[in-house]
Amino acid sequence: MATTGHTVKAFDEDLGQLRGLVSEMGGLAEAAINDAMQALVRRDIEGAARVVEEDRRIDEIESEIERRVVRLIALRAPMADDLRDVLAALKISGVIERMGDYAKNIAKRVPLLNDVRNVEPLSILPAMGRAVSEMVRNVLDAFAARDAQAAVDVCASDRGVDDFYNSLFRALLTYMMENPHNITASTHLLFIAKNLERIGDHATNVAEMVYFAATGHQMAERPRGEDVLATEGE
Amino acid sequence: MATTGHTVKAFDEDLGQLRGLVSEMGGLAEAAINDAMQALVRRDIEGAARVVEEDRRIDEIESEIERRVVRLIALRAPMADDLRDVLAALKISGVIERMGDYAKNIAKRVPLLNDVRNVEPLSILPAMGRAVSEMVRNVLDAFAARDAQAAVDVCASDRGVDDFYNSLFRALLTYMMENPHNITASTHLLFIAKNLERIGDHATNVAEMVYFAATGHQMAERPRGEDVLATEGE
Repeated sequence: MATTGHTVKAFDEDLGQLRGLVSEMGGLAEAAINDAMQALVRRDIEGAARVVEEDRRIDEIESEIERRVVRLIALRAPMADDLRDVLAALKISGVIERMGDYAKNIAKRVPLLNDVRNVEPLSILPAMGRAVSEMVRNVLDAFAARDAQAAVDVCASDRGVDDFYNSLFRALLTYMMENPHNITASTHLLFIAKNLERIGDHATNVAEMVYFAATGHQMAERPRGEDVLATEGE
Repeated sequence: MATTGHTVKAFDEDLGQLRGLVSEMGGLAEAAINDAMQALVRRDIEGAARVVEEDRRIDEIESEIERRVVRLIALRAPMADDLRDVLAALKISGVIERMGDYAKNIAKRVPLLNDVRNVEPLSILPAMGRAVSEMVRNVLDAFAARDAQAAVDVCASDRGVDDFYNSLFRALLTYMMENPHNITASTHLLFIAKNLERIGDHATNVAEMVYFAATGHQMAERPRGEDVLATEGE
């Protein structure tokens, strides 16, 4: 099927809107991570409830993106490269939806930690949260700019997040061993750290998709979405 | 664009192959869950290593599905309903890939538990593993048969998995409190239980997609991929 100048322009506009929705969705996920961590540090139960509530908006945008992808493919019948761009946007929106879920899960643990004071390893978590939200922001910028090198940098920064996770894991285990009363709170903090670590993995996955879309090649071989187990044995 | 009998048949064949690949991938994920749990119970480090190794195959099939989706859409230009079917297969393959990752993560913890004997709550985990792998098998059957009622049943069975998780969470916390020496092993078991619980959530998400594809309607409102926090407060 020959594409006229008119349909190319219409396709570009549709794709631009689609990519705009992905960016908007990503911005909401980034805000959700920051807000959840703020709510955690301040023991702000209402703030945490807002994060949970606002996750619906992220889910709505994902559905909107799906509808637009179906319409765009049906109407514009994009060919190979264009189609890959459309499907990449669809796939990235799915990953962002999961990031939002992890942020929501962090927020849902805030009320459960409310009666716990001065949990020592809690002081490392905000720094880890900042590192993760920075990864998310950087990968969204790389997506918007189709910047392969920026995508590589995002993957490199995941190592720092994994280091945070390993430190926290050991600190929380020690803390639990020192006093059994710390165990319940520490377990929630452990899951929060795990959620942040998984968001970092998802940002890495998005970076790989951005790299592939920009270059047509896979990023140099690395384990994908590798889950950190946090043990000396590895 | 008018579709001739010939292209309809070609499309149906392509779609059938695509759905066959999704089923194959799902079967591998189900086997990975079972094998990882077997390796855990038997402290079979080699068996666990095989699960980790075989996850590559799941990832390969996902890539193959992506390539076929792009080719199928470009060649056959499917319209609304057909296109939705194709994109559903793509989306489901993404969820199955994550199930495989969770099974791999369980397997990777097996060597770390090798020196731990008779961890009491370990006795509940195999039953939880069976319940989860049954959910995965049932949702794959529902997908293959485009059976909306079977998809509803899968969602209902997720409640049983969540109950398992809540029991395990409490058992493991008590176990940690009784003896600090149990903490490291219990933490790994806690993450394994969490991985199983997440696989159950993902099976539920697939069930919702199967239901939507079969009926054109969303399943009655329920929180999607709801993460269980395991506290009395909820």
